[in-house]
Amino acid sequence: MHAITIPEPGGPEALVWAEVPDPVPGDGEVLVEVVSSAVNRADVLQRQGFYNPPPGASPYPGLECAGRIAALGPGVTGWAVGDEVCALLSGGGYAEKVAVPVGQLLPVPDGVDLTAAAALPEVTATVWSNVFMVAHLRPGETLLVHGGSSGIGTMAIQLAKAVGARVAVTAGSPQKLAECAALGADILIDYREQDFVAELEKATDGAGADVILDIVGAKYLDRNVKALAVNGRLAIIGLQGGAKGELNLGALLTKRAAVTATSLRGRSLGEKASIMAAVREHVWPLIADGVVRPVVDRTVPMEDAAEAHRVLESSAHIGKVLLATPNA
Amino acid sequence: MHAITIPEPGGPEALVWAEVPDPVPGDGEVLVEVVSSAVNRADVLQRQGFYNPPPGASPYPGLECAGRIAALGPGVTGWAVGDEVCALLSGGGYAEKVAVPVGQLLPVPDGVDLTAAAALPEVTATVWSNVFMVAHLRPGETLLVHGGSSGIGTMAIQLAKAVGARVAVTAGSPQKLAECAALGADILIDYREQDFVAELEKATDGAGADVILDIVGAKYLDRNVKALAVNGRLAIIGLQGGAKGELNLGALLTKRAAVTATSLRGRSLGEKASIMAAVREHVWPLIADGVVRPVVDRTVPMEDAAEAHRVLESSAHIGKVLLATPNA
Repeated sequence: MHAITIPEPGGPEALVWAEVPDPVPGDGEVLVEVVSSAVNRADVLQRQGFYNPPPGASPYPGLECAGRIAALGPGVTGWAVGDEVCALLSGGGYAEKVAVPVGQLLPVPDGVDLTAAAALPEVTATVWSNVFMVAHLRPGETLLVHGGSSGIGTMAIQLAKAVGARVAVTAGSPQKLAECAALGADILIDYREQDFVAELEKATDGAGADVILDIVGAKYLDRNVKALAVNGRLAIIGLQGGAKGELNLGALLTKRAAVTATSLRGRSLGEKASIMAAVREHVWPLIADGVVRPVVDRTVPMEDAAEAHRVLESSAHIGKVLLATPNA
Repeated sequence: MHAITIPEPGGPEALVWAEVPDPVPGDGEVLVEVVSSAVNRADVLQRQGFYNPPPGASPYPGLECAGRIAALGPGVTGWAVGDEVCALLSGGGYAEKVAVPVGQLLPVPDGVDLTAAAALPEVTATVWSNVFMVAHLRPGETLLVHGGSSGIGTMAIQLAKAVGARVAVTAGSPQKLAECAALGADILIDYREQDFVAELEKATDGAGADVILDIVGAKYLDRNVKALAVNGRLAIIGLQGGAKGELNLGALLTKRAAVTATSLRGRSLGEKASIMAAVREHVWPLIADGVVRPVVDRTVPMEDAAEAHRVLESSAHIGKVLLATPNA
């Protein structure tokens, strides 16, 4: 098969479409013929040499895919060759084939075409596990999403609205904010022009955000704590603004608030399977009903993954950037 | 009645036993004739002028008491004059009488004498709400308790052992550690002589603590994050080592860990009542069965509250320092 390899870490041009050996599905795994994958920030870090795949993971980038089951490994039941699926991966999505533990496999939801389904696994698993399983967002509460027009952001807006929460977003342009509004966001904050703490305070009569979903990390830590409501929960899923920041424990204590940080990739098979099961139970019906949909910025041929990375790094996209294989 | 007043903030001598007006129980409150109260760190801060009582609270110090119900306010049912009770207070325990919302009142547990019952409300509510309701300590997990010989520490050791957890403690002397061991602590760390991160790592084969109950705050923040296990929860309940510290979000994210900070005093009546109901359901039976007991260092006449504060500030005590009123 072919896969995107990284002979030497570097810029987008470091991504090279090359012939490599086919993966072999192990116990409890299936082989998926990949139709599409999607670009995540972690792929950029991996390309730059800053994010090595965890032990046992594929050396190729790609944390999610959609495609058809091509073979079943030993001990797999409940799935058949030819099934259309999408999957959460610990790597290897930028390839024509990938081996996937069955716990990370989901059927393509009704009403979503196979290529677009690659936009779903990472964002649904990340948003559901953080906003709902860790931070327990409840109806009537306010969620603040940083980067509202990102893949994660567009899914977080829709899921939070679907459960009856109020949603505030930050984004970097009026056009991006308009897209967030079209998805249901109630409070729109242009972080280039406005201070999100002040804007959120104004929009919530001083109450603040019950839950914040954050991809920035250190650079926003102090302001995120300021923006939290009493009993608020700050869920950090990215460190685009640095990894070490000053935490005001006095403010946290007065608010009885929580700071959590998670990543999907390092979780055990069992943890990933339980998250995917929750996604299937809670998110898949919302997609099948048309309440929630994957937001796709564009689809690029997988051989041109470099171009897809340039788009992601320019931050000009809204929603997910997909990669389509020659199988598509 | 008499109460300990603070005419001018300052050292222990700032505490003055003086005649003051009797409190009047409001709607949903009872008047308790106080037999005993207990000293908490927050009382020392209040005496020093650093911790003003929240709006509506008694101006006198004292966050817990034991005694007898002397009168019922309007709308109170389920309690009778003469009932022996202990209570969580938002202030006013250093007095001969105090008005208490019924949600913060518990019967004296079987087998505990009335004076000693004042040792229970703050430590049981703090430990149960943080270690179990927020951090969800589970059987087989490891709890690290900083200040294992404190009032909070002695209760945390006993409750964690009672649910089948493993308990590590830090304390400042071999004698204090021996008292912790007698209460069931498994891993004993002298913080004056040993590095708790290294010792805990050794004792848990590198796994670390699933839950840490911390009273130190900023000074321990970085080391506490280092000591956490994967999926670990750091529950901060005091800031004796400062309020602002650097948080390593990268380490937190890799461990998928959480930092929470809480205080009891600022919580709403409803939140306090729900914590007390959980304490009555889960902790009171363990006390009645003799599995868990209040640990009392000494009992000092309330008029000599200054002496009790000197003991607390010397950190020579093990468990709670109680104050007995002339009613005792």
